[in-house]
Amino acid sequence: MATGKRVTAAVLLIGDEVLSGRTQDRNLNQIARFLAPLGINVMECRVVPDETDVIVDALNTLRAGHDYVFTTGGIGPTHDDITADAVAAAFGVGIDVRADALAIIEDWYAKTQTPVTESRKRMARIPDGASLIVNPVTGAPGFQTGNVFTLAGVPSIVAGMLNDIDHRLEGGAVTKSRSVKGDNLREGDVAEALGVLAKEFPEVSIGSYPYFLEVKAGEIKRGTHLVARATDTDQLDQVIERIAAMVEAVGITPRIDPVD
Amino acid sequence: MATGKRVTAAVLLIGDEVLSGRTQDRNLNQIARFLAPLGINVMECRVVPDETDVIVDALNTLRAGHDYVFTTGGIGPTHDDITADAVAAAFGVGIDVRADALAIIEDWYAKTQTPVTESRKRMARIPDGASLIVNPVTGAPGFQTGNVFTLAGVPSIVAGMLNDIDHRLEGGAVTKSRSVKGDNLREGDVAEALGVLAKEFPEVSIGSYPYFLEVKAGEIKRGTHLVARATDTDQLDQVIERIAAMVEAVGITPRIDPVD
Repeated sequence: MATGKRVTAAVLLIGDEVLSGRTQDRNLNQIARFLAPLGINVMECRVVPDETDVIVDALNTLRAGHDYVFTTGGIGPTHDDITADAVAAAFGVGIDVRADALAIIEDWYAKTQTPVTESRKRMARIPDGASLIVNPVTGAPGFQTGNVFTLAGVPSIVAGMLNDIDHRLEGGAVTKSRSVKGDNLREGDVAEALGVLAKEFPEVSIGSYPYFLEVKAGEIKRGTHLVARATDTDQLDQVIERIAAMVEAVGITPRIDPVD
Repeated sequence: MATGKRVTAAVLLIGDEVLSGRTQDRNLNQIARFLAPLGINVMECRVVPDETDVIVDALNTLRAGHDYVFTTGGIGPTHDDITADAVAAAFGVGIDVRADALAIIEDWYAKTQTPVTESRKRMARIPDGASLIVNPVTGAPGFQTGNVFTLAGVPSIVAGMLNDIDHRLEGGAVTKSRSVKGDNLREGDVAEALGVLAKEFPEVSIGSYPYFLEVKAGEIKRGTHLVARATDTDQLDQVIERIAAMVEAVGITPRIDPVD
């Protein structure tokens, strides 16, 4: 039996550069790994371009369907940074330069005798009613509006901002995961047995992930990771033991990874 | 003036492992980079869990809104591989083991004297009316159903499958990109001038992307990439020259990257 309620989140990645292939996103992964131990499961992610209407629509869909939403990207000082205005539009609230946000930015730039230009002031535009999120990396804050957390796009800045978020979140049951790795194991070797096991333990999510690593030119090391995820650790342990036995039965030594 | 029509694509990443943070996705980036030179712009991406209803809804939304859709993940032999059935459901067509797909799989496994079990046969389940996509890495084919291309989840297999796709696509105007890199340039140094330039060239998309690299422990190298994207190379060249001059005007040597 799972303990605690199920709490879900969505991630909205905002930026032409992710869709064009210029930038490899790392924020979905980073945010999912941050939330998992808090008992919050990311159930959906969308990547959208820098277009206000598209951002507003996606944000309104996601915030209605999940306990929390995390946006990344588009809160810098340049013309293509339109996320703060889009969040305000989605919530139907006003937006303007706010004194507390501006003070943070002025203090930050004063340290390096950098002028706070009009464009830098734009980073103090905060939707009405939002609370600020500390940015320990470059000063300009993120913000929380209802159940939506608006973060920067640069992964190292997102990492910094997440430190000011966990105390605002109410998590549910924590999903634990364990895995069995079988070098040279092919998915099809255990697929039938795995399907039977998945039916027997409907509350445990069992995934099968083949890997192909080029250890040196032309030499591929392959195998399969079998991953079980559940909130109930007793069931999780039972499933992992059964999977390990399954791998052993086809003549491969299972390598059991510790609990995440 | 742009030449040729605008052709758009969406990417649907299917898999609990991407949302849980276990797996860092690389397929969106790979597919976007494959499509860009063909004149096809990825305008949306969604990541969904291994749940049939969610996959069907997302797929039907995306295939109605874009010229092409690419799905990744969930076409292996195990119980959690439900993508083929979800695609059939989305299109309202039947699905069964198909002789040509099964022959490919039987030939493939015959090479290594591997039995084609019931679960391996599942990989020959193809939605009615689909055409197969060659998988040069592990045999089991992907498939095309209307404007939807269903690919594997492992990035190296996706790369292999893309080789059997370009001849099926009709691209439009190719978006070219060029960039100016300014070490130690901060976004705010050029934000006003960049905003003016963006208004002057509405058909050129101009993005500003700060970077922070830890070159060694505790030592951060920072700067900003200014990227322009357009289908018209004359306009693109004009914009890049203006951006380079802008960076030079604040005392930083611009580094102009060649056309992508």
